[in-house]
Formats: sequence, structure tokens, C-alpha cells
Amino acid sequence: MATPEFKQLRRSYGFDEVAIVPGDITTNPDQTNIDFKIDNFTFSTPILAAAMDAVTDVNMAALVSKLGGLAVLNLEGVQTRYAHPQEVLAEIAQASDAEVTTLLQRVYSEPIKENLIGERIESIKKSGAVCAVSVAPANTKRFAPIAAEAKADIFVVQSTVTTAKHISKSYRGLIFPELRKSIPMPILVGNCVSYSACLQLMRTGVSGVLVGVGPGAACTTRQVLGVGVPQVTATMDCAAARDEYQRESGRYVPIITDGGMTNSGDLCKAFAAGADAVMLGSILAQAKEAPGLGYHWGMSHPHPALPRGTRIKVGTTGTVEQILFGPTSVTDGSQNLVGALRTAMGVCGVLNIQEMHKAEMVIAPAITTEGKSWQISQSSP
Amino acid sequence: MATPEFKQLRRSYGFDEVAIVPGDITTNPDQTNIDFKIDNFTFSTPILAAAMDAVTDVNMAALVSKLGGLAVLNLEGVQTRYAHPQEVLAEIAQASDAEVTTLLQRVYSEPIKENLIGERIESIKKSGAVCAVSVAPANTKRFAPIAAEAKADIFVVQSTVTTAKHISKSYRGLIFPELRKSIPMPILVGNCVSYSACLQLMRTGVSGVLVGVGPGAACTTRQVLGVGVPQVTATMDCAAARDEYQRESGRYVPIITDGGMTNSGDLCKAFAAGADAVMLGSILAQAKEAPGLGYHWGMSHPHPALPRGTRIKVGTTGTVEQILFGPTSVTDGSQNLVGALRTAMGVCGVLNIQEMHKAEMVIAPAITTEGKSWQISQSSP
Amino acid sequence: MATPEFKQLRRSYGFDEVAIVPGDITTNPDQTNIDFKIDNFTFSTPILAAAMDAVTDVNMAALVSKLGGLAVLNLEGVQTRYAHPQEVLAEIAQASDAEVTTLLQRVYSEPIKENLIGERIESIKKSGAVCAVSVAPANTKRFAPIAAEAKADIFVVQSTVTTAKHISKSYRGLIFPELRKSIPMPILVGNCVSYSACLQLMRTGVSGVLVGVGPGAACTTRQVLGVGVPQVTATMDCAAARDEYQRESGRYVPIITDGGMTNSGDLCKAFAAGADAVMLGSILAQAKEAPGLGYHWGMSHPHPALPRGTRIKVGTTGTVEQILFGPTSVTDGSQNLVGALRTAMGVCGVLNIQEMHKAEMVIAPAITTEGKSWQISQSSP
Amino acid sequence: MATPEFKQLRRSYGFDEVAIVPGDITTNPDQTNIDFKIDNFTFSTPILAAAMDAVTDVNMAALVSKLGGLAVLNLEGVQTRYAHPQEVLAEIAQASDAEVTTLLQRVYSEPIKENLIGERIESIKKSGAVCAVSVAPANTKRFAPIAAEAKADIFVVQSTVTTAKHISKSYRGLIFPELRKSIPMPILVGNCVSYSACLQLMRTGVSGVLVGVGPGAACTTRQVLGVGVPQVTATMDCAAARDEYQRESGRYVPIITDGGMTNSGDLCKAFAAGADAVMLGSILAQAKEAPGLGYHWGMSHPHPALPRGTRIKVGTTGTVEQILFGPTSVTDGSQNLVGALRTAMGVCGVLNIQEMHKAEMVIAPAITTEGKSWQISQSSP
Repeated sequence: MATPEFKQLRRSYGFDEVAIVPGDITTNPDQTNIDFKIDNFTFSTPILAAAMDAVTDVNMAALVSKLGGLAVLNLEGVQTRYAHPQEVLAEIAQASDAEVTTLLQRVYSEPIKENLIGERIESIKKSGAVCAVSVAPANTKRFAPIAAEAKADIFVVQSTVTTAKHISKSYRGLIFPELRKSIPMPILVGNCVSYSACLQLMRTGVSGVLVGVGPGAACTTRQVLGVGVPQVTATMDCAAARDEYQRESGRYVPIITDGGMTNSGDLCKAFAAGADAVMLGSILAQAKEAPGLGYHWGMSHPHPALPRGTRIKVGTTGTVEQILFGPTSVTDGSQNLVGALRTAMGVCGVLNIQEMHKAEMVIAPAITTEGKSWQISQSSP
Repeated sequence: MATPEFKQLRRSYGFDEVAIVPGDITTNPDQTNIDFKIDNFTFSTPILAAAMDAVTDVNMAALVSKLGGLAVLNLEGVQTRYAHPQEVLAEIAQASDAEVTTLLQRVYSEPIKENLIGERIESIKKSGAVCAVSVAPANTKRFAPIAAEAKADIFVVQSTVTTAKHISKSYRGLIFPELRKSIPMPILVGNCVSYSACLQLMRTGVSGVLVGVGPGAACTTRQVLGVGVPQVTATMDCAAARDEYQRESGRYVPIITDGGMTNSGDLCKAFAAGADAVMLGSILAQAKEAPGLGYHWGMSHPHPALPRGTRIKVGTTGTVEQILFGPTSVTDGSQNLVGALRTAMGVCGVLNIQEMHKAEMVIAPAITTEGKSWQISQSSP
Repeated sequence: MATPEFKQLRRSYGFDEVAIVPGDITTNPDQTNIDFKIDNFTFSTPILAAAMDAVTDVNMAALVSKLGGLAVLNLEGVQTRYAHPQEVLAEIAQASDAEVTTLLQRVYSEPIKENLIGERIESIKKSGAVCAVSVAPANTKRFAPIAAEAKADIFVVQSTVTTAKHISKSYRGLIFPELRKSIPMPILVGNCVSYSACLQLMRTGVSGVLVGVGPGAACTTRQVLGVGVPQVTATMDCAAARDEYQRESGRYVPIITDGGMTNSGDLCKAFAAGADAVMLGSILAQAKEAPGLGYHWGMSHPHPALPRGTRIKVGTTGTVEQILFGPTSVTDGSQNLVGALRTAMGVCGVLNIQEMHKAEMVIAPAITTEGKSWQISQSSP
Repeated sequence: MATPEFKQLRRSYGFDEVAIVPGDITTNPDQTNIDFKIDNFTFSTPILAAAMDAVTDVNMAALVSKLGGLAVLNLEGVQTRYAHPQEVLAEIAQASDAEVTTLLQRVYSEPIKENLIGERIESIKKSGAVCAVSVAPANTKRFAPIAAEAKADIFVVQSTVTTAKHISKSYRGLIFPELRKSIPMPILVGNCVSYSACLQLMRTGVSGVLVGVGPGAACTTRQVLGVGVPQVTATMDCAAARDEYQRESGRYVPIITDGGMTNSGDLCKAFAAGADAVMLGSILAQAKEAPGLGYHWGMSHPHPALPRGTRIKVGTTGTVEQILFGPTSVTDGSQNLVGALRTAMGVCGVLNIQEMHKAEMVIAPAITTEGKSWQISQSSP
């Protein structure tokens, strides 16, 4: 009998399954450099606010930019469908569980107004913020010129899975090199999770890649499509692609880990796994200033094969500034994300994000033992 | 001391432990081809309804066939024991938990009427549907000629474990090459889970093999006999046998993954693991048209060594058409199975089921992290 | 820097983590041979009742022997401390949770009466049963001659861990070759879990070895001492020792897997892992005839380093005969253990226990998927 | 395409995932030697009480020393901030959950009184106990001379992570060789978790190393910083460093596993993994004599990046003597830690701690099977 050729499965890891190993030396957390760059833009806080209606509006974009990060405005959400989105957002927050699905379907059937795209971008720019906007690949050709004309700074093309090449008999897919020539700003593309998909996206000339598809077992993507890769492995693989692309091209294209992080510990692990920045959704939807008013949801989707987003109550934990920089009195990692990152870097003995990529990690399954919650309170050197 | 010869254990995987990795390119889901063939029969929906009394009756057989799939009627269940099975089914649905075991034992002690076998097959044929019927190996010699005479289209021989060879001193086991000669229709056989058992079944000349024994840890087969193989590994191993058999014989014998799938994500994973089609039980028992009226159960069994089936309340989620094709407003993967399969294929960048067999998969344990239920709602390209 | 010499850890497996793979052929369960031999004794049922006060008394010994198995009477329990043990057993069953620990400590501080040892053995012999008795190593020299004089058939020396050699400055440990010469009956020894400990015990000339130390994570042995090996690995390792010992000596010494089995599936796995027989505690304590009256407990212990036994309510599920042979209407594997074993052997295509040792097994973690409880009820060939 | 250079992850293990394998011989537990040495100090009980306010005060230091162990007094806690710490401790114990965080922040903002450092040390010395005191690295230069002058016996420098080298532009880090010259007593340093970090600490000339950072998945360190290594792997790695350091220097520097142990089984595993001693927090906070009065907490921390300690109710299980030596009537491993250790050593057939380091261990996941709580109560030889 011939040797059977079984399909091979590679082991992958999520945040809950790994931990960072302290270094052989330690460094002063206050002296770590956590700058993040997209082409000529430098951000002192390597955190992006997700292009979700419950996370980013004009006000959040201004706030996050002021705090050193970057918020991405979704050009296909309520902000561009309604002249007065606050009313719609309040309606969603006040709807009962029974009526919210119907409401969301109605809200997102309102057409996108091209003039509102320009208005929102101008408002963000007026606040002095760096302005990033996001569209799905299918609408890119239509909205990219409008965003360029309104002087947006960074353009994000994002869908569940975006690849360098899309095959269809009925329409011509988006060609990223063409898009780059048509708009004069950095382009971020995503999401992807594998080495080769990421490498091929980078070879199209984009300025950054978003990493993350179905990161958690409870994800809709995983339950409905069976598709997904746990975020630590996805980040490690795309980081390897980034390093390979730098070797072959000389160009360093940052990767942004998007999704699956629930606390500051996960965020620290994302950087140790290779992320240059992280994109946060539900953690920032919990901010007092978040447009979701304590709720978070996805958008309805035109394709009947894919289910509609569910509204989740996330509550409100503190201001954006507390979430990013503290001060905090909670010990669950939901606040002071930047402080935690700097402290983790200190414990790993590194001085910047690229050194943090080399921190050792172990597989350390999520089995609860003694809750030594007091150890953290002893002072570091 | 000699080197100890320890027994070796191979790692196996179930649906909850794996995920599909998106491809390097994407394809248009609407242009994927998901045809499934059994000899000269082609099905546009690669889904079989299980030969269980709560799943398949004459009406369901007609419905599923109309929707492109194939339902299998059990020739040893209530449909062939009772002239008016609806009454019996209603009685089972209405029985209290305390009395249902006794009721089931009584219901299945009624003898099978050979004339009803013919009647049921004729009713299914009259509806225009492809008619598949199922018997246990022990009753095959008796019922196969009746099914053939009634012009059934496909004959299924199914038990918990069926092998190419059965050893007994007291009776002569079923010989599949003999059965093939005696009835003029394709024969599907199952269930099996290993490479060599599947390969040996294919060498008997059958037209398809059912894959799945004790797929879940909560299975009765696993609890009572300790026997079973998680479905992803079982499917991968039998797919390797199918490919080997094609190499040695030139004939492509499809494998049908039967059991263990709880949502559309599991179904997509079965195809990525190598399935040509899937057989569904409890998911279809939840259809409004299902004969089980919101319940699902196995049949009582004459052998005292094996326990009797338990009745489980599965509830009713939607019509068969909604379950297979949507539209749906739920995000748990219980509806629009075909839409989910096509979308997963698009995300993997493949155009047909055999290409889907080559999709990359990772081991991704079922640990819950952030429930990013909104990501799916962003539009695909 | 020199290469670090890290301690190595080997992976071990328990019943919940493995499953048996069906064979390439199947056999008729009714024709399987499950005989088990200890020297010149042959048992048609390869099941031993544990030497626990809640499991084995004179009556159970007679019953289990009549059903083909072997019950072991503990010579250091209530049966030899009290002329009328039923009264004491009833008192234990009726005690409240608050008072039972004190009661057990008092009950087991009553001295052992040497005359009762003889009386119990004679009663068992009078019933026609094979009589097996058990003592701890420390009391072996004192009680073995009494058991021999009373014509016990099989002598069991058992403690949590028993080895071929025990080191102490204050007393001389038990020497098994000496014991063998002093009493004219087969000696079973245990418990052990590793290849080399088992091999060394076999080399002392004993007639059988009990396998199992701290098999489950919830075991007191594991929680208190951190000591234990999951039962599948322990059984596989000791089976390898048995096979090696047979190669070097020509003598086949059976191993008896003791503990950790909660249902018939676990029992089937023990045999597939290499067991020649199994010893059951709590499953048999659930018999209507069990002396524990629905409760199960360990004995108090004189050494302050070891905690005292806890009384557990196990309830009553059926007669010993139903537990061993059915008929049964439950599907949880708590009854018809022998029927399940024969059916599993049929599914594996084997005809006796030694062939069952070669059945393939996979690692199949205990993750619940679809509870396909009906599949088992389809008839086997 | 070049071969991708993926980041590698090593598997690590916690207490719940391993078990000790019994040896090929057994020894008499009463004859085991469990001495632990720090330079010229010999302790008959290899257990340290943690430098936490809920665990160690003057009275506990005296008690633990009398029982053969060593308690470490924290020089930065309530004992040196308040002349009458009992009042403060009672206030913390009596505070409601709502007010305790504010209370703790206030309590620990009171300045440390240098005169109280001397007083506490003298009180401990007066009781006849060996006196060990602990400070964070940042305060070491200030408090070490005071401790030396008051004739403390052992000096502990402890923080979440302490390394041989600390990099900062704004201040000069602690240099251990300098510290050693300035104070005439053994120095213990920690915590660390990796081979090379431990080896480098030992090369600074310290007399012992504390092992443990974020040992459990529920740890604040793990949740907030993502940093930590499960304790079994941390202990094994640092034990390898100790052995390597002994090879290169001839000096044996003990390692003390600190944290993550919840019962005597975990403690036994720590020794089998390579620990020379263990440091206990919450287990000893449960002593009747513990200053925490049934509660346990960390200290508030001045750095806003790190969250403050949470108060946990641990309850009271028995006297320190019962916890360390029994007698006990509980079977959960919370009492008679020393008895359990000696019994585990007997079962492993070893006579001292260094032999215990060679005991075999297996990976044995924490899956619950049969709770054979009676087996332990059978007598050992």
C-alpha cells in the first residue's frame, strides 16, 4: 500500500495561549520609544481606532489624533449616510433587543451621500487631526477620488479578506498599483492573515497592511465560514512577510494587528508577535466619547450569504485618554494601554517597537492557577 | 534494558479545533461551482439529509431534491413500519420525557411492512425527486431487491461502522461486489473513518462512502464504546484514501462527511478537509418541514449490548430553504449553509469543491477571545 | 554559554483524551472471547471488584464470581474489624455530612480481628466463589499466613504505590520472592504506573500487576502529592513492560487497570491501551447489592501526612448483573459494560483481548460537538 | 520565494498541566531530609513566607522560624509605615469592597519610617528567629544600610521582574556586586523566570534567586502586561541555570519558586521541577495567625502605568503549624504541606530535595475523570 498523503495542519496560536518572557536586562519604561510610521506620518501612539460606527466619528478622530494615535472613519457608515448621525446613533442605542436588527437593516439601507464624505473629512482636518478614511474594495473606485479631493491624509481599503488579486467573470477587481497612482496618499489594505497573502499585498506598493481574519473562536467569521487564524500566529506570519519584503525591496511596510485584543496584555503580545501598531474596536467603543454610546455593532451587509451585525452592549469604562494613558484604578488591563505597553517593554529590556518584536514568547495555555493579583503591585526597579 | 515498545497515539482533530486560512487570491462567490456527483447523478447542492426518522420522510425527500440536494429515506424506521407515520411521529413529539423511552421501544418493535417500502419509494419518485434509501447491512439482502423493484435511484448501506469484510461463524456477512451485481443502482456505504477501511470499501466497487464514527466527545458511540474519530481527521484520512483509490483505479469515489457539524462553519471545514458532500442530521431536523416536529432521536435497537436512542429537543429554526439558502438574519451559522460555503470558497480563492480540498487549514483551538461579530458585516470585494 | 540542560517532560493521556479507531474489518461481538487468566484461574469476565468497603463484601464476592469476574475483599476494612459489618455500613450511610469524618475515623480505629479474616474467607469459599483478598504491604507478613490457612485463592498486596524495593532504616520492607514462597497462591501487586517499576515488580515473580496511581486530575493523590499518571499512558507503559517481560522470561503476567474509569467507553479504552482486566470501584459501588448502600469512601489512615477518605454519594443505578451485562435503557455507558466491550471489539474486528491490545487509538480531546446520540442506535452488521 | 522566518514559540507548563511519576523504588517518608540552605543558614522546612502585608509580620516571622522555615518582612509595607500596624490591618479587613481601594491607596501613601525598620528587625531577632527583610530595587540603596545596622540576617531584593542589569538614562540602576560588598549578609534576588536571566543574576554573586513572574493565566501581570511564564517551566529553566552556574563556579545557589501554588500537590511539583525551596503567599495568608485576618492584597503602586492591588478574601483554614505539618482532616492539599512533600518523596523513592529534582514528571492536563478520593487512604508500605 502506498504511503497515504494526509492533509497537513499547522498549529496556530491566539492571545490567550501565549505569554511574553521577561528579558535578561530591564529598561526604564519612561524612556521607551513607541513611535509608529506610515510613510511620512509619524504617530507617537501606535494605536488605530477601528473604522466602525460605534468607534470613530469626527470627534473621536480629533481626540485620538490629539493623543498621538489615528482613528479611521468608515465612509460607508452612518456618518456619510446621514447629515445628523447622532440622532441615528442614539436611536440604535435606545432600541430594544427585539427591534434592533430591523432598525440596523433600515439604517444602513439609506444611501451614502457623496457630499457628506467631503464634509466629514473637512471637519476632521479642521480639528488639526490626521484624517484616515476607509472603504470596501467594491466602492473604492467610486469614493477614493472624493476622499482625495477633500484632502484626506490616509486611505484604507478594508474588507473581511482582501487580496492582491480578485477573480470574477462579471466585474474587474480592484488593482492596487492603479489605485496608488490615482490618489496622492498612503494606502492601507486589509485584512489578511498569511505570509504569502501579506507579501503579495506589500508587493502592490501599499503603505501598510491590516492583519486579522476571524481571530477568535467566537467570531462570526469563524462560526459562519469556518475561516480564521488566531491573531498571534497571523501577526507572526505577516511580520515574517514584512521582513522578507524589506529584504527584497528595502522598504519597511508596517503591519497593523486588527481585532481579537481584549485587554492591554493582548496588546502587548501583539507587538511582541511583530505588530507595528494595533487597531482597536470594542476596547475604544467603551470610551465615554465613543459614538456608540456604550454599544458596538457591525453594519448590515447587502449579500444574503452573510449575516448582519449584532449589537453588543460594551458599556463605558472611562475617557479615551484614561483608556490609552490612565490613570487607572482597575487591574483588568482595560485601561492605560500605553502605560502597559511601555512597562512590558521595560520588563523585556527593549527601547523601541522593533526591538520588542524580538522579545521571547512562550505558549502558555489559559489555565487559571493562583490569582496572584498582588504581585504586580510590587514596584519595578 | 531493551527500549520499551510503547503503543503510539496519533493526534486527531474535530471541527472546533481547526480553521480555514484565506487564500492568496479571492474569487467571486457567485461564480463558484459546488456540484456533487454520484455516478451519473449530479446534485447542485452537495448536501444529503440523513436517513433518520426525524429528518427524512417522503415530503422532505421531495423538498431537498427540489433544492438540489439528496435526502435518504431509512427503510427501517417509522415510514415502513406504519401506514400512517405522521400519527406516530406526533405521538413521539408529544410524549413526556418520562414516557418517551418506553414509547420509542414500542414504536420500533412494530414489524417492517415490505409493501410500505415500495409505496414510500413510489411516492418519492412521483414527486420528481431522486430517491435514495438506506438499510442496515443485516437487512440488505432482504430489502435491496424490493427497493430495486420499486425503482429507487440510490441505495445506501449504513451502520455505525461498516467494513468491506465482516467475520462471523454463525452467518455470512454482506459481500458488496455481490450486492452491486444484484441491484442496478449506485451504492453508498458507511460509516468508516480510517484510510485503510475507506480504501478497502472503495475497492469493493461502491459509488460513495459515508465518513463519521463517534465524531464528538459527547457521542453515545464514544461514551459507550470508546470508539470514534473526530470528523476533520476522519475526513482528511478518507479523502487521502479516495485520492489513492483514484490513482490506482482511475475512478473518483466521493466521500460524504456524516455527522458532527453544528453550523455552517463546520460544513465549510468538512469540504476544506476533503469532503465531496456532507450528510446532515440535527441541522435539518430543525427545519419547519422536518418530520420530527422539533425533536430528533435514534431508533431503538434489538441488541441488548447497545443502548436505545434518546429523544432530543432541537427546536425549529426556519424552512429547509432558509437553512440551505437563506435569507437569514441570524449570525450563528445555522442558516444559509450554501451561501456560507460559497463565501468561504470565495475567501479561499477557489472555484469548485475539488479546489476547496486544497485550502490551507490551521489548528486553532476553541478558545473564546473578543467576539468581533461586526467584522463579518464589512463588505467583501 | 553552554546548552542548557532542561528537564524533559513526556506527554501522557487519560481516558477523556483518546478514542479507539474502528478496524478495517468487523467481527461478530457474540463470538468474541474475553477470558482473563491469573495463573491457573480463568475468568470469563475480565472485571475485578475493588478491595473497598463500599464495593466488596462476602455477598458481592459470591455474586461477581458467579458472573464470571473476581471481587477482592479488603482484609483491613470493616469486614474484619466487626463481627456484624452491616450495622456499621448502615451507620456510615445514614451519617450526616457533618459527622461522617469523625465516624469514619472511629470506625477504622477498631482493631482488625484475625479470626474474622478466616471467617470471611470461608464464607466466600462456601458460596463457590473464587476468593481474592487484599492487604497493604505493611501488614502482609502478619495477615498472609492467615489468608493462606483459610484457603484464600488469590492474594493481593496493594497500596497507593508499591514497588519491588522499599528503603527504610527502621524496618525491613516486604520482599515479594519471599512472600511467594511462604504462601501457595497467586499474588497480585500494585499499584504502579511506569514501565520500569512494572517490569521490576514482574521480575519478583508475581502473578499480576495492578496499574493506576492518581489517574485523574481531581484525584486526592494528584492534589495532595502532585503524583499520578493518566490511566491510558500508565496502561500503555505497563503493557509494554508486560510484553518485554514475556520476551525475557516466556511468562505472560497480566496487568489490571485500576481506577479512573467512569463509563463503559473508558473500560473499552483500557483494554485497547493494553489492559488484560480492569478493577472497578465507584461503578460497582453503584450496584444495588453493593455494601456501600449508595455511598463510596476510602479508609481512614494512621499517618498524619495523608488525609482521610471522604464519603461520596454515588447512588444506585442497577443490579451488578445489569451493570455488567444489561439489559439497559440508559445511553451513558454506566451499564452493560461487557456488552459494550464485546461490541467495541466487534467494531475493531478483533476476537480476543490480546488482539484488542493492537487496536488503533487516536488522541481526541474531550471537546463537545454535535451530540449525535442516535447514531449508535443504527444496527451493526 | 524565500523560506519564511517565523517567530518560534516554546511550549511552557504550569502546575495544573504536570504530574509526578512514582519511582522504581519507594522510601520511608519519615526518613527523608528536606533541609534548605542559604549560605550558612540551614532551614529544616524549605518554605518561605512571602513579603506581603497579609502574610508576614513580626509574630509570623517568629512562628515560621520556630517551625523551621523563613518569613520575609516587607520593609515597604504597613509594618514600617505605622507604629501600630494592627489597627491599619483591622481597618483593611473591615472595609467594604466599595471603599477598600481608596483605603489601600491612603494606607500606602503614609511615608515609611526609618526608625520602624530597625524596631521590626529587632523584635524579630529578639524572638530568636532568623530575620529576612525585603525591599524593591529602587529603595535598596536607602534601606539596606539600616537593615544591616539592625542586624537583619538575610536581605531580599524583589520586584515583579529583577535583572542583573537595568538600563536608564535618568538614574543609575542597582549593582548587585556593589550591594554585596556594602552589607554583610546573604542576598536573595528576584523575580526571574528564564535560564539566562537567572544565570546572570547568579553571576552577580547573590545567595539565592526567586523564581516566578505572572505564573497563572489569571495573574494581573499576565492580563495587564501579557508577561509571564507558567511556574513549572520557569522553575525547570532556572534550575538548569543553577546547575550550569554550579558547573562554572563550583557554587550552589538555591532557587526559590515563588507564587502560583494553590495546594500541597503544586508544592511537591515545584520541588520535582527543581526548586530548593518555595515561597508561599495566599496559602499562608489563610493561617489563623496571619496578619491579613482572612484577607490578602498587594500594595498600591506609585507608577500610574501599573494598577493597584486588589483585596481578596482568602478565609482562614488552620494554624500555621497545621498548614505546614498537620494533623489535618481535609483532603484538598491545603494543609500538612511538609507531610505531603515527604510522602511524595517517599513515593518517588528519594531521600533529599536534590534527588527529588530528578523525579520523572509527565504532562498530564487538568481534565477531571473519576474522583478516586479513597485511593489515597490505602496505607503506603
